[in-house]
Amino acid sequence: MPGISKKGQNMPASPIRKLVPFADAAKKRGVKVYHLNIGQPDIPTPDVAMEAIRNFRQTVVEYSHSAGILSYRQKLTQYYAKNNIKITADDIIVTAGGSEAILIAVSTIMDPDDEMIVPEPFYANYNGFSVNAGVKVVPIPSSIENGFGLPPIEDFEKVITSRTKAILVCNPNNPTGYLYSKEEIERLGRLAKKHDLYLLADEVYREFVYDGEQHFSVMHLDGLDDNCILVDSVSKRYSACGFRIGAMISKNKEVMSAAMKFAQARLSPPTFGQVASEAAIDTPESYFREVKAEYVARRDVVVQAMNKMDGVFCPNPRGAFYVVARLPITDSDHFCQWLLEDFNLNGETVMLAPATGFYSTPGMGKDEVRISYVLNVSDLKRSMEILDAAIKVYPGRK
Amino acid sequence: MPGISKKGQNMPASPIRKLVPFADAAKKRGVKVYHLNIGQPDIPTPDVAMEAIRNFRQTVVEYSHSAGILSYRQKLTQYYAKNNIKITADDIIVTAGGSEAILIAVSTIMDPDDEMIVPEPFYANYNGFSVNAGVKVVPIPSSIENGFGLPPIEDFEKVITSRTKAILVCNPNNPTGYLYSKEEIERLGRLAKKHDLYLLADEVYREFVYDGEQHFSVMHLDGLDDNCILVDSVSKRYSACGFRIGAMISKNKEVMSAAMKFAQARLSPPTFGQVASEAAIDTPESYFREVKAEYVARRDVVVQAMNKMDGVFCPNPRGAFYVVARLPITDSDHFCQWLLEDFNLNGETVMLAPATGFYSTPGMGKDEVRISYVLNVSDLKRSMEILDAAIKVYPGRK
Repeated sequence: MPGISKKGQNMPASPIRKLVPFADAAKKRGVKVYHLNIGQPDIPTPDVAMEAIRNFRQTVVEYSHSAGILSYRQKLTQYYAKNNIKITADDIIVTAGGSEAILIAVSTIMDPDDEMIVPEPFYANYNGFSVNAGVKVVPIPSSIENGFGLPPIEDFEKVITSRTKAILVCNPNNPTGYLYSKEEIERLGRLAKKHDLYLLADEVYREFVYDGEQHFSVMHLDGLDDNCILVDSVSKRYSACGFRIGAMISKNKEVMSAAMKFAQARLSPPTFGQVASEAAIDTPESYFREVKAEYVARRDVVVQAMNKMDGVFCPNPRGAFYVVARLPITDSDHFCQWLLEDFNLNGETVMLAPATGFYSTPGMGKDEVRISYVLNVSDLKRSMEILDAAIKVYPGRK
Repeated sequence: MPGISKKGQNMPASPIRKLVPFADAAKKRGVKVYHLNIGQPDIPTPDVAMEAIRNFRQTVVEYSHSAGILSYRQKLTQYYAKNNIKITADDIIVTAGGSEAILIAVSTIMDPDDEMIVPEPFYANYNGFSVNAGVKVVPIPSSIENGFGLPPIEDFEKVITSRTKAILVCNPNNPTGYLYSKEEIERLGRLAKKHDLYLLADEVYREFVYDGEQHFSVMHLDGLDDNCILVDSVSKRYSACGFRIGAMISKNKEVMSAAMKFAQARLSPPTFGQVASEAAIDTPESYFREVKAEYVARRDVVVQAMNKMDGVFCPNPRGAFYVVARLPITDSDHFCQWLLEDFNLNGETVMLAPATGFYSTPGMGKDEVRISYVLNVSDLKRSMEILDAAIKVYPGRK
């Protein structure tokens, strides 16, 4: 029988999905599972987007332009202008989600064995994209002690080689929720400039910024037009993960021209998702105010409850809808599986993501878990009670 | 300034798109351009699919399963059963168009520098996918003399090396319209079995088979379950290119399990497109009867008109909606550009695809063009008059 490629063998399984069979088994036993493990928001998709879909009247659903429908790209420039990001429709390639944007960006700027520096913990699928493109992710550990702030620039400089092509940063961060400051992004900008590197920024949680903070984009950096590549998505912004609409954005003409060849090879991004996303740009500000208020309330429930638990440390992140917390455990994979297999509190348990899946340095994240606060406040409160009870009786407790 | 990857530099520009600026310039001069260069059907998307979109009522447009919505995959098994292809929902990964299916399939079975044999002329984007995945397309020329039938098996065997992993065949064929016979597919099957190769089949034009012929799928082959991988798409079937819904299908569990890791890394295929595609499975047979009758009428107009032109030879293909014809010219790139830049018949011209873009052997296709018969009969008749007049006065005529 013909075999599988090395690439196929090395593709990482999702750290979230490997626990799914245990969650399914728990449900079969009648245990209720609170899902704190996923990045799928429960917030309704804006009406204005759904109306556009219901009113779709084209007779032939044609390929769109490979860079995306022009009217959508033009309207996107207004969305970005509101965020003080000044671009034209030509600086945008609409993609099948942020995932495709990262894959095209990485393939455009990196060859097999080239290196990309990423602060860890990081979004687990970056591993998948890098294996897929044959490139190497070089992790720089950030620390839970300062809430996963930007690691010292010296740490980046230590690992820069002739093969280093890019620094990738997710801001606000998945999995930590950390919001990088203007000053931190500027520091990264100077580093990219000094070493002639691309600065790739995944800013799909741009709207999810709390406590009066402002999001500072790599696109706000002066004099770095040729270095910066923005990866974006409507998935979280409009609670529209199923649209599969993202974007790769850069003012570097050479990069965009090469990226267009990858975009043309896959013909076009999804038409329905683009139509809905174009309409979604008119989502009223009140929608975002409500969503943000909701997430702040949820975050506060989780962070406050976690820090009251014995032996638990949970930073108070100012973005996205995740926290990474340190628990008094030594094997987060075992703990998360145990929660599903061996524990319940009155017939209920929680599903968490072991943080090991978000590190590429072996051994890291073993005492950390990621919690997504994508459930309502009442379910989150109950989830925290369950987690508290679980930690108290977990046999692998430190 | 940081540069572009070698891969990015080597990605081929689409052979169709490089003429677009000349077509745009012609239109600016007031010349009407008949587009015989594209694979975008003008047939309406079935009502039943459009109704499903207009009735979409989910509140949150969530990620679907990475392999695709289960109800869609289950219904797809009924569609395939009707085509005598017996698979289960687990044998299917729904993809963002046939394009993603090919990329995932190639990445699953081939590492950089591995080889895939493809009869040429072939769908130009296979070059893009192979550069993207770092793999090598090894072309085997087919001949216009026998209508681009399967080249002799000896020609395949001559180029098989230890790096050969797969044979890729498009049936019915884009760009030639050739429909491979049962006997030819069986021959390929024996070859794949003998040399332990994957047989990758792009069958996105399955419905477009004329003159009472039957489509014979690689999935109909006996004893080749582990070798065969089917690449499919709803784009042409339902004139729904913008849905961006395809599928990778195989009964080889190891292949599907590795492919799922690539599918998980990009999270999920588009939700709206899946909902529309699921509904589209109920498209009445009358739709396909009408579409086929229309394409046969169009093909007949083109083939008959072409063969009446002096020095032109056009096979009479039995599938898809393309023909590759030989013209009395020596540089089809120049001819197609000349049609747009320097020629018009009473203010009208035609846009064709030079066949050079469908060959990877240098020098081939220079006296051939691909014509897509995606215009109505009346426009096609006029297009043929224009082409006839153009060939008569073309200065580069052989």
